[in-house]
Amino acid sequence: MIDQLIAAIKKTNAPIVVGLDPQLGFVPDFILKKAYAEKGETLEAAADAIFEFNKGIVDATYDLIPAVKPQVAMYEQFGIPGLIAFKKTVDYCHEKGLVVIGDVKRGDIGSTSGAYARAHLGKIEVGDKSYAPFDEDFATVNPYLGSDGVRPFMDVCKENNKGIFVLVKTSNPSSGEFQDRIIDGKPLYEIVGAKVDEWGSELMGRSGYSEVGAVVGATYPEMGAKLRKIMPHAFILVPGYGAQGGRGKDLTAFFNEDGLGAIVNSSRGIIAAWKKDEYAKFGPEGYADASRAAVIDMQKDIAEAIG
Amino acid sequence: MIDQLIAAIKKTNAPIVVGLDPQLGFVPDFILKKAYAEKGETLEAAADAIFEFNKGIVDATYDLIPAVKPQVAMYEQFGIPGLIAFKKTVDYCHEKGLVVIGDVKRGDIGSTSGAYARAHLGKIEVGDKSYAPFDEDFATVNPYLGSDGVRPFMDVCKENNKGIFVLVKTSNPSSGEFQDRIIDGKPLYEIVGAKVDEWGSELMGRSGYSEVGAVVGATYPEMGAKLRKIMPHAFILVPGYGAQGGRGKDLTAFFNEDGLGAIVNSSRGIIAAWKKDEYAKFGPEGYADASRAAVIDMQKDIAEAIG
Repeated sequence: MIDQLIAAIKKTNAPIVVGLDPQLGFVPDFILKKAYAEKGETLEAAADAIFEFNKGIVDATYDLIPAVKPQVAMYEQFGIPGLIAFKKTVDYCHEKGLVVIGDVKRGDIGSTSGAYARAHLGKIEVGDKSYAPFDEDFATVNPYLGSDGVRPFMDVCKENNKGIFVLVKTSNPSSGEFQDRIIDGKPLYEIVGAKVDEWGSELMGRSGYSEVGAVVGATYPEMGAKLRKIMPHAFILVPGYGAQGGRGKDLTAFFNEDGLGAIVNSSRGIIAAWKKDEYAKFGPEGYADASRAAVIDMQKDIAEAIG
Repeated sequence: MIDQLIAAIKKTNAPIVVGLDPQLGFVPDFILKKAYAEKGETLEAAADAIFEFNKGIVDATYDLIPAVKPQVAMYEQFGIPGLIAFKKTVDYCHEKGLVVIGDVKRGDIGSTSGAYARAHLGKIEVGDKSYAPFDEDFATVNPYLGSDGVRPFMDVCKENNKGIFVLVKTSNPSSGEFQDRIIDGKPLYEIVGAKVDEWGSELMGRSGYSEVGAVVGATYPEMGAKLRKIMPHAFILVPGYGAQGGRGKDLTAFFNEDGLGAIVNSSRGIIAAWKKDEYAKFGPEGYADASRAAVIDMQKDIAEAIG
């Protein structure tokens, strides 16, 4: 799957992933009103509104970008109807030819990680039939439980041509509380990074990159530079661009000399662009066009930075 | 919520939680056949079978136990129908008066952790209405992202009288890979444990225990003893009893002198008891009675150990 992601990045010339992390506050009134009129102020209506909102953004941007990253928490908070909207979003993005990174941050002990892996990347057998429950292309994975929490994902990746991004250094302010603590002279995130490199060596794509990638926040570019060297074959999924403070010039460290090796996520900066002064001219009705303009600006910002 | 859990433990004299982690291999044929006959070999049929299986076990054990712990991965692997069965299980256990610990191991950056917290422990607003999407009583939380990944859960706990169990030292063989690494002379799990104690001090129940508990595997009793001292006010959720190798005598270290402070989970050992030689006499039709017998035996084993 990493080879397919790289092909899509080359085709679009945009190492960009749009984070489909909808909040009701991002959804223009005309969409909300329609959903409430049809189904009342219900979880079902909220889920319909979110899917409709996503669809607009995907329709307006799919030709510019290689991938999307729906954050499952934003759907899970609307219960079962929300998760139905998540699945519809995954399927719609696939119809449009996009690579889908499920930002699920799952991770558990062996057999349970296996169940999560099947849920998001694999298949489950029911009698003689087999189903792919959520069927994303990549999933994010939490490494706290160690190798036997990660390997079941790797096994499912191998069987189904899928990939994972393991949390190494997250973009949030308190990520250093545990991740930066020094062990044998090195911060924990470097130790996790070395493991990512080791795990990844077992799942190499033809591109020279591995199906086992890493998450490293744009907000920590020096650490990104170090991790880039520790995990030369790992693709880095970089959150934290835009709303969280990361900028194009901070991103060069995450890329390899081949101009590849990283894909930068922006969520709010794209999907809620219409609410920013910069793109206000589009108005609520033009929210999807605003997201397209924001993608084009982001693509330029990153292209200039990585030159 | 911790006070309610403690009251339920005292009433049943059983610091036991039954892990409702169904796999199709645990479900007797007569339940599977009925479900397949009604809905074919579909995810819906699998979900129906799982709920029916759970219901039998809950009906046979609810008077003996304070709490259940459904592992959401085991439902998520059956997609949307599986998650509907998860929610039905949560609701059914509530009807029977049980405390429900959602074993979800979620954790993300601030606003996203907030969404997970609302999904599992809180409420979400849609227009002027408010809904509790999954509505467990406790959730398990992964600490890798640090305080700003945990605090949104604490905020939701405070508003809704709920609690969390933070992963500190997990029961799996490779948990030591990162968790045991030495930082300033102490293993990482002790540093996370100290944080649990600090977070917990902000959410104390009347019982002297906190709404912020910890997960520490039965498979590591010496570490449990150390963590018991580091987190005197944290209730410890102890997985790994039974199938993973933990035994009653290993558990004393997890309890305080008041006989409280820990609740021991058994999943497979209870719900798949009917497949073990020891309880084979119950047969597949008596799977629920087998689980009741296994609960009684576990309760004895632990009572003898903690005296």
